[in-house]
Amino acid sequence: MTVFTQTAPHELYLHHQKTLQAAIEALRAREFYAQYPEIPSGKVYGEDSNEKQHAVFTAQLNHPFQGLLQTSDTQITGAENSPFTREALGVSYPASKNIESYIQQAHAAWGAWKYADTETRAGILVESLERIKQRFFEIAFATQHTTGQSFMMSFQASGPHANDRALEAIAMGLEEQTRYPKQAHWEKPMGKFNVVLKKHYQCQPKGISLTIGCSTFPVWNTVPGLYASLITGNPVIVKPHPAAIYPIAIVIAELQHILKDNGFDPNLVQLAVDTPENQITKLLCEHPSVKMIDFTGGNAFGNYVESLPGKITFTEKAGINSVILDSCTDLNGTLQNLAFSVSLYSGQMCTCPQNFYLPENGILVNGERVSYEDVVKGFMKAIEDLTHHEKMGPGTLGAIQNETTYQRVATVAQSGVKVLLPSKSIPHPEFPNARTATPLVLEVPLANREMIEQELFGPIVLIIPTKDTQQSVALASELSSIHGALTCAAYSTDPATQAYIARNLAESFTPVTFNLTGPIWVNQSAGFSDFHVSGGNPAGNASFTNPEFVIKRFVLIGTRIA
Amino acid sequence: MTVFTQTAPHELYLHHQKTLQAAIEALRAREFYAQYPEIPSGKVYGEDSNEKQHAVFTAQLNHPFQGLLQTSDTQITGAENSPFTREALGVSYPASKNIESYIQQAHAAWGAWKYADTETRAGILVESLERIKQRFFEIAFATQHTTGQSFMMSFQASGPHANDRALEAIAMGLEEQTRYPKQAHWEKPMGKFNVVLKKHYQCQPKGISLTIGCSTFPVWNTVPGLYASLITGNPVIVKPHPAAIYPIAIVIAELQHILKDNGFDPNLVQLAVDTPENQITKLLCEHPSVKMIDFTGGNAFGNYVESLPGKITFTEKAGINSVILDSCTDLNGTLQNLAFSVSLYSGQMCTCPQNFYLPENGILVNGERVSYEDVVKGFMKAIEDLTHHEKMGPGTLGAIQNETTYQRVATVAQSGVKVLLPSKSIPHPEFPNARTATPLVLEVPLANREMIEQELFGPIVLIIPTKDTQQSVALASELSSIHGALTCAAYSTDPATQAYIARNLAESFTPVTFNLTGPIWVNQSAGFSDFHVSGGNPAGNASFTNPEFVIKRFVLIGTRIA
Repeated sequence: MTVFTQTAPHELYLHHQKTLQAAIEALRAREFYAQYPEIPSGKVYGEDSNEKQHAVFTAQLNHPFQGLLQTSDTQITGAENSPFTREALGVSYPASKNIESYIQQAHAAWGAWKYADTETRAGILVESLERIKQRFFEIAFATQHTTGQSFMMSFQASGPHANDRALEAIAMGLEEQTRYPKQAHWEKPMGKFNVVLKKHYQCQPKGISLTIGCSTFPVWNTVPGLYASLITGNPVIVKPHPAAIYPIAIVIAELQHILKDNGFDPNLVQLAVDTPENQITKLLCEHPSVKMIDFTGGNAFGNYVESLPGKITFTEKAGINSVILDSCTDLNGTLQNLAFSVSLYSGQMCTCPQNFYLPENGILVNGERVSYEDVVKGFMKAIEDLTHHEKMGPGTLGAIQNETTYQRVATVAQSGVKVLLPSKSIPHPEFPNARTATPLVLEVPLANREMIEQELFGPIVLIIPTKDTQQSVALASELSSIHGALTCAAYSTDPATQAYIARNLAESFTPVTFNLTGPIWVNQSAGFSDFHVSGGNPAGNASFTNPEFVIKRFVLIGTRIA
Repeated sequence: MTVFTQTAPHELYLHHQKTLQAAIEALRAREFYAQYPEIPSGKVYGEDSNEKQHAVFTAQLNHPFQGLLQTSDTQITGAENSPFTREALGVSYPASKNIESYIQQAHAAWGAWKYADTETRAGILVESLERIKQRFFEIAFATQHTTGQSFMMSFQASGPHANDRALEAIAMGLEEQTRYPKQAHWEKPMGKFNVVLKKHYQCQPKGISLTIGCSTFPVWNTVPGLYASLITGNPVIVKPHPAAIYPIAIVIAELQHILKDNGFDPNLVQLAVDTPENQITKLLCEHPSVKMIDFTGGNAFGNYVESLPGKITFTEKAGINSVILDSCTDLNGTLQNLAFSVSLYSGQMCTCPQNFYLPENGILVNGERVSYEDVVKGFMKAIEDLTHHEKMGPGTLGAIQNETTYQRVATVAQSGVKVLLPSKSIPHPEFPNARTATPLVLEVPLANREMIEQELFGPIVLIIPTKDTQQSVALASELSSIHGALTCAAYSTDPATQAYIARNLAESFTPVTFNLTGPIWVNQSAGFSDFHVSGGNPAGNASFTNPEFVIKRFVLIGTRIA
């Protein structure tokens, strides 16, 4: 007798079983793994994909979005404007006038998915990634012209890297839901006889999940929560940032199609677009039927989300990331690496360093002391060389997503703090109207705690002279505890100092990356290997993708039968 | 080069490695497993243990508690009174006048434990269970004369069953902290060359943990959170219920000794006693240094705990447990089993059934319809036969822990609802002053929603006539969703009906137990096999012991080194 029926493995599960197994093995080993190649190579993604999908992108502009299958009673045009052309995208999306409709449609769609076995869900979800892969170029153009990321970064972040993070969430969900046996024979010796019970275990999905997107990484930051909720059997409502809808609309459209093709209700994943003038996020957050909320964005709204009673929340907010300079072997390599880190996407990555702690008596380079002034000078030169390089500059900086970030740079520059390097606009070879800004570098004395303790989102870097490395570490850890941090880049050649730094930053739940010089940067977080956001400090309460990220989305229930 | 040092395995880990491995295997298989035999046999626990430890217990009464090693500046006598003798225990405990002292002592004690490896912690913690085992009889007498449980139940619940639950938490903590490799070699192909990073992973403990005990299960409900926080490297402050301190004080004393013996600070686990007149629980809960709270108790305080901003909480509150009667093969066995369930410890178990849903046209017994009236009559007889049985009665019922529970029975009996079976006091052969009460059984029509929706803690049972099983199921699930539930005992011989019941109760995250007739009851939850409290409905947000119960107590942090 079975209380919960077990269906035969779905054909798409069998089709993708090897991929899923490889992904689970990668999660377990934490070694390098990537399912989707990060270079937009024609050989991998189709020789004419770039051109064809650019044509699709161009045709989509100023037209209603094609492909979503969700129930809708209106069309909404968000606030999408290209940071490169400064023109509105003019795309409208199917929507519901009343948020209650999203809730009702999610409830109505839930049933079959809730009771589908995890393997069936996993197969369908991996297939959705394969379909999304066919649209990586369109997603890249859509990302570029909403976020201001360069084309290359748009392709990588919203394409293969996002797909890898989604696959990671699927794999983690499959792993966590299949770790325990579905049945057990329980036989308790009672002396002269045994008591026997059959036990069944199931993972019961928690309910409607809301995923709130941000304007800078509309796909990469959305898909982990979206796929984590889906693999654990929950319906999802995606509320994108009104300025970055198109990229994630493509993902949702592909999900809706694959769901429909396999007999499930496409309303399991709904896009819920709003406008800056008529926001629906709080209405959705506070709806009693919304049980889980994934959020990426600023601290004020993130703290609001975390404070909502009775909701399970997964947040990635902001923090003050630090650089600790103690000693190194290759000063040029160090400064070039850091210059790239602060220039990449003009400091608009949540992982970008902001506060540089540099001992006022300089640092040791191969045992020789290099003065504070020379390190600063070298760093300024490295930034200038990179950002003013005709080819490297524009491709690294991209454009500034919004006017607020752009204005912040000017405001901070005029705040009376010593400017070491002014921010400049650089011409973009392809887009003359691009909103660009090179990093503004300031020198801030320790006494100016107010400035040091601010998150200054955008291309703004603070050089903070310290007494010594010990003081650098104390400050970095203290600020991580108070304001949160996602990353710390540290440079030290001394193992004892490395251990000291890592241990002290761990006290504020901040991961440290040591001694990067080559073509890899502290901003980057690798799927299957790096936990993105620790979840332990105010920068966020969740982590891509630790087991907690999936197991909070279902309840383990045991049934006993005599 | 290693950033985080790895110590050699601790000798106690090596000593207990087999036990830990067996416990982890049991967790994985969910089959029967018990490390500590549940019968107070002299052969297992020492021939004269009962007498010797009874003498220790008697000598302890009216004296300061012996054995705690914690820093203290005062002595506090709680509000411990025996429900059997109605006399005060008169035991005082070392305490701190200011709660800030507990916090400071916890912080000061933390360091070495925080950075001890998980295996070291596991070995020491299992050793503590072995030492506690040597005091099972004293713990049983202390439990009996604070909670009102019979001696046998006191022995089992606070002794072997609690130790098994503690071992389960240790094993789950060890499993979850050692699942991922501590190091990984990460090598990313970049075309012409590879980028190489070494990665280290550690589990960083979250901080001071507060465990709030209850008056009915002062050990069983306290040790899972206590040991889960310890195995994950956190210091713990245990705030027992003022009426049930002595049993858990023994556990804490043994922990403090084993910690000290192994070079750790005994203040890692502190007992924080208060009195009903001068309660410190909220002060501790709201202290910014308290990061995690384990709570067992009533809904009002539990909801307060869950609402505290920025705290990670693990709650077990109350609910309305149900019985669904549809059909069975052995009516006598069924009714005797249920009579025992409602009589055991006089309905003071959080898992005890309260609302019995019985179709007004009766139930099928081996295909023959037995009328509603006959089922009710049989149930009343089964309760009377059990509770008035000279030997079985007192040992099953135990005593009523407090006057409030005792008075509730009288108040409810006089509320105008039809009494099917009045509650009586029965004489206890050993303790003439014992506060006893047999179950009060009421018949409550569906129209009386107010009564049906109340949790009536203590020996109070409601028989609720329903139209049919479908209505029984709908009510049981609805009330679980609104008020929470820990258990549902269902009787049905039809597989389709079983599936219907299990699925509908799973919607409100309530585990169902089917068709119990023998010497095993729905109230019981087995370590290593049953998840106690699902964590999905208002009866509590945590579960003994699912992975979530331990992984929320630490943060996974990765360190990367070029």
